Amino acid sequence: MYAVIMAGGQGARFWPRSRRKRPKQLLDIVGSESMIRQTVDRLLSFVNPEDVYVVTGMEHVEELIGHIPDVPSENIIAEPVSRNTAPCIGLAAMRLKKRDPEGVMAVLPADHVILDKGGFLETLRNACEVAKSGDYIITLGMRPDRPETGYGYIKKGSGVRGQGSVYHVERFVEKPDKATAEQYVKSGEYLWNAGMFVFKVSTILKAIERYMPDLYIGLLRLEPALGTKEQERALNDVYGELPSVSIDYGVMEKADNVLVIPSTFGWNDVGSWTAIDDLLPRDEHGVVAQAEHISIDTKDCIVYSPKKLVATIGVSNLIVVETEDALLICDKSRAQDVKKVVEILEREGREKYL
Amino acid sequence: MYAVIMAGGQGARFWPRSRRKRPKQLLDIVGSESMIRQTVDRLLSFVNPEDVYVVTGMEHVEELIGHIPDVPSENIIAEPVSRNTAPCIGLAAMRLKKRDPEGVMAVLPADHVILDKGGFLETLRNACEVAKSGDYIITLGMRPDRPETGYGYIKKGSGVRGQGSVYHVERFVEKPDKATAEQYVKSGEYLWNAGMFVFKVSTILKAIERYMPDLYIGLLRLEPALGTKEQERALNDVYGELPSVSIDYGVMEKADNVLVIPSTFGWNDVGSWTAIDDLLPRDEHGVVAQAEHISIDTKDCIVYSPKKLVATIGVSNLIVVETEDALLICDKSRAQDVKKVVEILEREGREKYL
Repeated sequence: MYAVIMAGGQGARFWPRSRRKRPKQLLDIVGSESMIRQTVDRLLSFVNPEDVYVVTGMEHVEELIGHIPDVPSENIIAEPVSRNTAPCIGLAAMRLKKRDPEGVMAVLPADHVILDKGGFLETLRNACEVAKSGDYIITLGMRPDRPETGYGYIKKGSGVRGQGSVYHVERFVEKPDKATAEQYVKSGEYLWNAGMFVFKVSTILKAIERYMPDLYIGLLRLEPALGTKEQERALNDVYGELPSVSIDYGVMEKADNVLVIPSTFGWNDVGSWTAIDDLLPRDEHGVVAQAEHISIDTKDCIVYSPKKLVATIGVSNLIVVETEDALLICDKSRAQDVKKVVEILEREGREKYL
Repeated sequence: MYAVIMAGGQGARFWPRSRRKRPKQLLDIVGSESMIRQTVDRLLSFVNPEDVYVVTGMEHVEELIGHIPDVPSENIIAEPVSRNTAPCIGLAAMRLKKRDPEGVMAVLPADHVILDKGGFLETLRNACEVAKSGDYIITLGMRPDRPETGYGYIKKGSGVRGQGSVYHVERFVEKPDKATAEQYVKSGEYLWNAGMFVFKVSTILKAIERYMPDLYIGLLRLEPALGTKEQERALNDVYGELPSVSIDYGVMEKADNVLVIPSTFGWNDVGSWTAIDDLLPRDEHGVVAQAEHISIDTKDCIVYSPKKLVATIGVSNLIVVETEDALLICDKSRAQDVKKVVEILEREGREKYL
């Protein structure tokens, strides 16, 4: 059993806290440890540190090692460029193939919150048993407690014979509108796609070979160099040419051996600042403040300002985030648009704020 | 002709920019110079620097001298405690009495904006002529261009014989409600009370003697020491015991020799952050930004942040003020309540933010 942590991405929706050099997974947005540290800690009663692999951007390797010094540095795989989840997972699988081709790998995002660690580990153990037993791609499906429009959904199909709580996947669906999401939740047939997967190394490589042959050819080119001194050079040569496609689109939606295990363990993808509302305590006015805060007639606000006194008067539904060099003030309904600020900064080449 | 500039007060409504040690009159809220500097500059084509007197709080003398080094330091009169405008004006008058008892003094606040300097000086010259000609207390009344509820009003009475644009004052009225203010503006009979006065030294001292005998007795106790080395000691002994009353309430509303000169010279008392809207250019979305500002669907906001990038998304009618150690976010309709933050800080003894 191996854990593969996907620690790419920037988390632009968490600007101005998230920056190119300090992406979301390296921030302590919830709790006192960084999200990558919390993700590794959660796994360590299930896998050994030397069986944890992390795929991350080349520019983050150094700082990442500082957060998880217990994970061997040769297990940190550096992407020279970001290429979405299919190449990331393929790369990790090809690396593991050289070590243990019939091993089971659990693929987990670095920047999600899981409140019920026990429930999570139990589900993961269960998924591992199923993965060991055959050629299955297993997804963890979260039982929805609200009609969330920010997540993709998985429709479960028939139960798997002899496996009480494991289902075939009928289909994957994109982020729905509100009305559709409400139907999904009501039906009891739909689960949130949490982006967590479990399979044998050989299973996912076979699926990539079949459904993403271009990617597979690229991975074969990389194979000889992986785990050797040639790895970095080979990745520099090959990785940028791989197709930038998600594993959901490239494999999951096409494969016929995809199963889902419905789960409940307080999962949150911490997708934008408003996730804070679900994860940190609010006061009686709905205010979450990580700040010295003077609040006059303030309702339902998120205030992050570790170094500066903040006074708010007569405002509501605001996200206020103060950092060393930048300040964000955003209506909560527009939390998704924080990434637009990053886009503007990129377009205008204002590097110091990126 | 002498100018007496009232530079007391803190301007708590401009927190977090205004502080005990950096009150509003020492800030460059509008323009590149401090308000006291602008006030002195405006007068210098009319009076000599040695004929300018400034009454201010003892704790501000040192910094104030730095702003107006051209005004002789012996003309800066330090109040050991703040005692409203009647003692302040009485003190300046008593000081001037020793130099020129029949001189004319113009009393002007340090922290107002006047856009039309030429119009202002013309009015002031006119007021001086009238003041010289008799025992008159002259107020400058601003012609209202909107039903402002934040100002007191002056109802003009009959014209003064032989003086085209000078009127007797029928009465002073407190800040009105919106409907009343609308009537006032419509009637054409009401003017804004700008807190600017012109009179002979002897005239105001006579009025104080008659209408505020307690204050007058205090001023007589101070008289021998004023302008001598004993001044500071005497003020420390006496000033705190003087009645804390405004000149409007203590004298103007009672005296029968009060005149008003209707004026128009782009006056603004810069009473709260929303004054910025009238004084600085707004962009096409009604935004006034003194900041590196990324604006996404932002309307009618005031953003002051000289050192930090600010991004605003989907917000409107906000005042955002960022300083070294504090951040204010206030709905514009609550601009008057900024002083409540200062009250809370005082109550809680959080000195470093005061």
